[in-house]
Amino acid sequence: MIKHLCVIGVGLIGGSLALALKKAGYVEKVTGIGRSLQNLQTAQQLAVIDHYETDYASALADADMVFVSVPIGAMGDVFAQIKTHLKPGAIISDGGSAKQQVIDAAREALGSKIKQFVPGHPIAGTEKSGAEAAFDSLYQDRRVILTPLAENSRTDIDKVRDMWQAAGAAVDEMEARHHDLVLAGTSHLPHILAFALVDCLNKVEDVDEIFKYAAGGFRDFTRIASSDPVMWRDICLSNSDAILAMMQNYQQQIDELKQCIEQGDGESILALFKAAKDARDNFCM
Amino acid sequence: MIKHLCVIGVGLIGGSLALALKKAGYVEKVTGIGRSLQNLQTAQQLAVIDHYETDYASALADADMVFVSVPIGAMGDVFAQIKTHLKPGAIISDGGSAKQQVIDAAREALGSKIKQFVPGHPIAGTEKSGAEAAFDSLYQDRRVILTPLAENSRTDIDKVRDMWQAAGAAVDEMEARHHDLVLAGTSHLPHILAFALVDCLNKVEDVDEIFKYAAGGFRDFTRIASSDPVMWRDICLSNSDAILAMMQNYQQQIDELKQCIEQGDGESILALFKAAKDARDNFCM
Repeated sequence: MIKHLCVIGVGLIGGSLALALKKAGYVEKVTGIGRSLQNLQTAQQLAVIDHYETDYASALADADMVFVSVPIGAMGDVFAQIKTHLKPGAIISDGGSAKQQVIDAAREALGSKIKQFVPGHPIAGTEKSGAEAAFDSLYQDRRVILTPLAENSRTDIDKVRDMWQAAGAAVDEMEARHHDLVLAGTSHLPHILAFALVDCLNKVEDVDEIFKYAAGGFRDFTRIASSDPVMWRDICLSNSDAILAMMQNYQQQIDELKQCIEQGDGESILALFKAAKDARDNFCM
Repeated sequence: MIKHLCVIGVGLIGGSLALALKKAGYVEKVTGIGRSLQNLQTAQQLAVIDHYETDYASALADADMVFVSVPIGAMGDVFAQIKTHLKPGAIISDGGSAKQQVIDAAREALGSKIKQFVPGHPIAGTEKSGAEAAFDSLYQDRRVILTPLAENSRTDIDKVRDMWQAAGAAVDEMEARHHDLVLAGTSHLPHILAFALVDCLNKVEDVDEIFKYAAGGFRDFTRIASSDPVMWRDICLSNSDAILAMMQNYQQQIDELKQCIEQGDGESILALFKAAKDARDNFCM
């Protein structure tokens, strides 16, 4: 049970956490804070948060749990600004999609208070953003990865774990760099590929016609290209090593396939497509 | 109104056409024929077809409309086999996703009967295949592209057009090569990219873990990688020129993005992602 949760950045991720915890009766009070006053007002109107503050001193004075869900590039600043306002014993966690760089930024900004920061990442989302995109079942039956620090106490880690479980999620723990590699493959690379496909088609002369004849498969495939560009720019910059390695692998795969098509090598194309279909059917059903 | 429709290859595409026309009361009798007896039996049990035949002489003797929905690579054979059994004045159409090669194969196989073939392509589908995947609303509010031949009569073209409209679709006409270019971008390339991504991740050491942490975005993005490998092999081989050109464009786009990430050029990454989001939001909403 959390007495007072402060959500910094009340968008899809932070807002949905607040709604899920409220629905579960796991939080008494939720305060929101963030850059956009309009978004905070919307969040309050939609009862995503109970009220909002415009300065960290007021927002954090009484907060037991501080959840940071701003684009990764803004996290360092947030940590620096909240440091002096944290209540003793308050726990900080976050929802950043790349962990190592967030941890580095937190370590630099929080200094000795780094032990209060339990990094995490809910593997959930939609292509929508902002407080109005939040909904209470976003984390239901989804996974959350925590990447605890050596400085964290087991009690604090468990408090973050309990919070996510109350929100409906299953919680795993792993090393931050390992998390970053796994997510580069399953999330970061697909987003980059989808953005790139839409951009690529957008440059074709008959662009209107191209999109006119796009069917359901294309819509599904490119849905993630409607995601927040700032958030995804930050992820690209924050997890660049793992992402570049994955892009390299992917380019080799595309080159191989291109060569098969050039050579009319139907057997190899079929083998490749069959392996993909089998893997997808096995793992995603 | 069609008195007797013969569907060659009763899968998702042909089966859904039969179901849609039956529901609309636009067809009196539907005969199925295809390689798999089991699939034909399923189709009959599910009332996708009224009955099936195992030889073309019986299947086509009385058929006014013949719809060919087999993988593109098998179409030449089908055309060659049906040629001598066609009722005079019967119309042939097809559902192939790449038109020029189907037309070339039809021209070679059908000879002087080529005028009876009105090529078409319904821009609809799911990742499922087989008669049990068919459903009567697949073409509702979807587009069908006809790529008529100089030899076709306007009456025949209009009969195929009327059939698709009865199935719920909006019908356009365009030149076959233009169709192939448009579809290479909106359908063929995305399928290839999705197959390639799953294959690429499938080769990573921690493959089980990779897929374990795949979220909704990944599932959407890779759904089309569950499509029929044979059908997609045939499309790759049949529309290779347009597909290779699109793959080339795409590789350049990926190279550009990779360079931006390598150089930490957040501004260019953001511009690219924003352009993609805008295009996707404008065209796909």
